[in-house]
Amino acid sequence: MSGCRIVFIGAGSAKFAANVVRDICLTEGLSGASVALVDTDGEKLRAVYRLATSFASETHANVRFEWSLRQAEVLEGADFVVDTALVGGHIQQEAEREVGERHGYYRGLESTDFNMVSDYSTLFQGYKQLKHFSKLAGDMERLCPDALLIDVANPEAEIVSLLSRISKIRVVGYCHGYLHVRDIIRTLGLEEQRCEYSVAGMNHNIWLTRFTYKGEDAYPLLDDWLERRSSDYWVNPSADPFDISMSRAAFDMYSMYDAFPVGDTVRSGTWKYHYDFKTKVWWYGPHGGPDSEASWPRYLKKAEEQARRILEFGEKGGVGVTQEFPPVRSGEEIVSLIDAVVNNRPTRLVLGVKNLGYVGWLPDNVAVEVPVVADASGVHPEPQRLPQRVIEYTLKPRIMRLEMAIDGFLHGRLSTLIDFAVRDPRTHSEKQAEETIMEILGQPFNSELRDHYLR
Amino acid sequence: MSGCRIVFIGAGSAKFAANVVRDICLTEGLSGASVALVDTDGEKLRAVYRLATSFASETHANVRFEWSLRQAEVLEGADFVVDTALVGGHIQQEAEREVGERHGYYRGLESTDFNMVSDYSTLFQGYKQLKHFSKLAGDMERLCPDALLIDVANPEAEIVSLLSRISKIRVVGYCHGYLHVRDIIRTLGLEEQRCEYSVAGMNHNIWLTRFTYKGEDAYPLLDDWLERRSSDYWVNPSADPFDISMSRAAFDMYSMYDAFPVGDTVRSGTWKYHYDFKTKVWWYGPHGGPDSEASWPRYLKKAEEQARRILEFGEKGGVGVTQEFPPVRSGEEIVSLIDAVVNNRPTRLVLGVKNLGYVGWLPDNVAVEVPVVADASGVHPEPQRLPQRVIEYTLKPRIMRLEMAIDGFLHGRLSTLIDFAVRDPRTHSEKQAEETIMEILGQPFNSELRDHYLR
Repeated sequence: MSGCRIVFIGAGSAKFAANVVRDICLTEGLSGASVALVDTDGEKLRAVYRLATSFASETHANVRFEWSLRQAEVLEGADFVVDTALVGGHIQQEAEREVGERHGYYRGLESTDFNMVSDYSTLFQGYKQLKHFSKLAGDMERLCPDALLIDVANPEAEIVSLLSRISKIRVVGYCHGYLHVRDIIRTLGLEEQRCEYSVAGMNHNIWLTRFTYKGEDAYPLLDDWLERRSSDYWVNPSADPFDISMSRAAFDMYSMYDAFPVGDTVRSGTWKYHYDFKTKVWWYGPHGGPDSEASWPRYLKKAEEQARRILEFGEKGGVGVTQEFPPVRSGEEIVSLIDAVVNNRPTRLVLGVKNLGYVGWLPDNVAVEVPVVADASGVHPEPQRLPQRVIEYTLKPRIMRLEMAIDGFLHGRLSTLIDFAVRDPRTHSEKQAEETIMEILGQPFNSELRDHYLR
Repeated sequence: MSGCRIVFIGAGSAKFAANVVRDICLTEGLSGASVALVDTDGEKLRAVYRLATSFASETHANVRFEWSLRQAEVLEGADFVVDTALVGGHIQQEAEREVGERHGYYRGLESTDFNMVSDYSTLFQGYKQLKHFSKLAGDMERLCPDALLIDVANPEAEIVSLLSRISKIRVVGYCHGYLHVRDIIRTLGLEEQRCEYSVAGMNHNIWLTRFTYKGEDAYPLLDDWLERRSSDYWVNPSADPFDISMSRAAFDMYSMYDAFPVGDTVRSGTWKYHYDFKTKVWWYGPHGGPDSEASWPRYLKKAEEQARRILEFGEKGGVGVTQEFPPVRSGEEIVSLIDAVVNNRPTRLVLGVKNLGYVGWLPDNVAVEVPVVADASGVHPEPQRLPQRVIEYTLKPRIMRLEMAIDGFLHGRLSTLIDFAVRDPRTHSEKQAEETIMEILGQPFNSELRDHYLR
């Protein structure tokens, strides 16, 4: 019986919290665990707490839940800290995007080469996220210095890189995006259990380094699909805007960089795929991919509805929770990782870790995303080899922007923000860059950020 | 008495050749040397040859000159190979610039962040240069494997990086741009002989890593000048468009990247300084810097006139050459380098060399520019430390484009050229990038390049 203690920060993120709570209750090896739910939004927090206790009760799970509005109250003795917090929520991101759009930045100033994922802010909300995580790292050093921090929040690469530099706590990043490799396997018509694969890169910029089917290289199956089946597929692509794993963009990146992109990687690339909606439609299908002006608001709305439904259900509390949330594992792997470590069950998954030579030719002080085997002795990355073009043309430029985000957070020089914007193909004058940034810093909810940069 | 043999390729570059010839004749330690002048343009070559022999005769220099249209005929036994060749000449660069301008690329497609120097082509003429130098390296391996190649031609960083990767010959790059540090010293009103300095970076992207006056840090003198004297200076800046060492752009780069830029570095930076003529004027003075549409054609015209005058003089031949070319050293340092090695006179200068940890945080397989001491045992670089912002925001992005140029040269994938253009702030669609590139490849003088990329 495990007496492990898990602190879940950002537990008001209802959908994710519901998944994690469910997975903990359904994991035999975590029987006896205690779970502290933390959020700054007391209403959401209490709803998730009720949902959790109801679910535990109905599934007869031996898991003790508690809640707190302040992480420092509950971190002591934690073995794992899971953090999904998004300080300020999507509403601030969307407000900032709107400012950007008005100044000529289609899809917002924070959409950049190799980072077009709409809720991956590195500069503005990113600052708040880095601040939140720095504070958390400080609290953890005091209260639970041996705990493993599992960062599920964006900007994951920046957060894990920063904490690896400034703190001694152990931290990994988790992003389920790599599981989109299953889209590839499904579309190729392969049996998943006979496929093996590795990916490597950085968060939202990962590439298939190995792909086998029945023990043989499966890359030729991608080439074959492109030649024989792609044109039919592209005429009638997936209706899900997030299912772009086999899109024109994915194959174009493959042709340019010599490795197949996986998951959220396909959403990014250079502006070539993103100049406008029409361009996006060509590369990603009729919805223009997940980050188009057509898809993204729909995604946010749907996510909000799901969250509201979960919270409403939680508020009601009481019986019947397993009818709404059937007692099956969610498919997320956070709890598998915890189970692997607590119960020494070697488990292979993909995590963001500080690069220590795992991906050659990349600096050691950035977070890379690689396959790892997790067990009681920790997280053991598998070294990966990436084509030079992926390294030079995608990851290194991505790292430049990561450095700017961390630099901006640490040193608060306005010129760093302007330099960031000046390198953007949508910037046509320094004035445009400066006005956009000043207006974003001038948002009522950005007063702290404003002080940081304009003090 | 030195019996050293120098092969000078691109000797038709009259102004440069006249300087080198003069310096060789005036260097006592090179008495007894033999110099082979090589160019593909026989007329220019013979004029420079006549000038050289006349100059040697009038100065009683014991230097034997010969000439050849084919480098392979004269390389055998060479100790030094100096190469200033520009395959195709400025006329092709200007024609390509004109195509770019018509497609929306102000100052041409090859003007990019951290490479705005107007005759530094990496892709198109750059391809021809890399090809020329690859061929030369092959010839040298056969005919003079121990010779030192001194590359004076652009794209210097790409040439030295490429040859360091593919050949065993010894190669260094020489660019006199760093001597503009004297502009700084002069404008600050310091005595040059009491200043010491080091610079580091890559060709055309070098930064003051050390700057002392009378043994004390002289950086504060720059800060003081900015505060007290810059506004007067900027109202009435230098009339020479190449004298931009103390321009607004230089100080802006200093404020952004934490080191003072030197020489041609100031010409580049991001697009922030270059959006249009008006922008250039603000940052560089009324001429808009050397690379504006006002200054550059004037520079080319002047250079052409100088060359014509030298060639005309050479063709006439005969006596009186030292009246036109007084017997004083030119200020170029090529011959100082040769003298240092031949006669073991330790000499400090700045050269482009393969990075072997001399500049930390940069890859080993690129050419960096650092101070070296040259003597009979070779070229000994002094390791340098650059601020992180210079590394991350200026040199690493510059290296990405260097890699693209070398990749394009080695593998001839059209997608590399398009990817290069897509990352440019002036590109608004893939179509624009593709049409520009296709039109440049379609120039009559680019047939070989076209075959390379479209085969």
